[in-house]
Amino acid sequence: MSFKETDLDIHKEIEELKSLIRDVPDFPKPGIVFKDITPLLHKPWAFQKVIDYIGNRYIGAGVEIVAGIESRGFILASALAYKIGAGLAIIRKPGKLPYKTVSASYTLEYGQDTIEIHEDAITKGTKVVLIDDVLATGGTMSAAIDLVEKLGGNIVSVDFLLELTFLGGRKRILEKGYPVFSLIKF
Amino acid sequence: MSFKETDLDIHKEIEELKSLIRDVPDFPKPGIVFKDITPLLHKPWAFQKVIDYIGNRYIGAGVEIVAGIESRGFILASALAYKIGAGLAIIRKPGKLPYKTVSASYTLEYGQDTIEIHEDAITKGTKVVLIDDVLATGGTMSAAIDLVEKLGGNIVSVDFLLELTFLGGRKRILEKGYPVFSLIKF
Repeated sequence: MSFKETDLDIHKEIEELKSLIRDVPDFPKPGIVFKDITPLLHKPWAFQKVIDYIGNRYIGAGVEIVAGIESRGFILASALAYKIGAGLAIIRKPGKLPYKTVSASYTLEYGQDTIEIHEDAITKGTKVVLIDDVLATGGTMSAAIDLVEKLGGNIVSVDFLLELTFLGGRKRILEKGYPVFSLIKF
Repeated sequence: MSFKETDLDIHKEIEELKSLIRDVPDFPKPGIVFKDITPLLHKPWAFQKVIDYIGNRYIGAGVEIVAGIESRGFILASALAYKIGAGLAIIRKPGKLPYKTVSASYTLEYGQDTIEIHEDAITKGTKVVLIDDVLATGGTMSAAIDLVEKLGGNIVSVDFLLELTFLGGRKRILEKGYPVFSLIKF
């Protein structure tokens, strides 16, 4: 099989995965079309494919921690950590983590939000992959990058299941100096 | 190696995993000692062991869906679904799921709480494993069982990483007619 044919197969498979993402109009508020990933999660073959596509890129890369953002990010982070033999760090909303934390704030359309990580989740020099379900404006992920940097983690890649390309979040992550990967693009 | 020696090894390994659970006093409120599982999640070998111990019980069992409860339940459900080749269903707080849901309420110390699942997460007769991080009084999990029953799911087992045996939640789940498994007991 030539390189071109393999490439086409992957493209076809990713289109199949993409077709499982459901548009839900007016969620969470009027005028927003929400990308619902649950139909993809429900299908065993699709869920396995997603984790394998993301995770196979890390074979032999020595990733020590996969960090996921509450709460849909946990879904991808956990299976990915298991697949590649890494530990799992969780990044949460304020007041949810019981132990000593570091925090980072980011700007929303109206006001601010904050996320936290346990201070012992990542030690200096640890090879970390950050993952979340959707790359939109990149605000939450930028704050997550700040958290990992504060703990001295070495960010290998910043991964997403979906990317809403028209919102420009990729540029924001790239400007922080890290590679961005998204499996499915809209 | 005799059966007895194997049995002792497993016991020793589970004690090692248990030693990674951190007691955090006065969280989330004064007088409560919170069992913090994050030190276990951070260690690759420990996280892998947990998922393998829980998941190896399902080899050849034909489990089609692993259902996890927001949000720490997602951590266990996702890696378990990946390991055993099942799909993933997510059970969330009200208003978080974008599509049509069914819901179930349960009683708390003061007042009530509700959880929801997408109505297309589980079809009639689907073999389902339910999982959450901690079995305390069993209130949330009882409501989660109601959700799966409403959708006609066939519950194979109700699993937990930790069980707080003194709170009696196991009895409550058993009375609903399902097997209960917890890896670590306090």
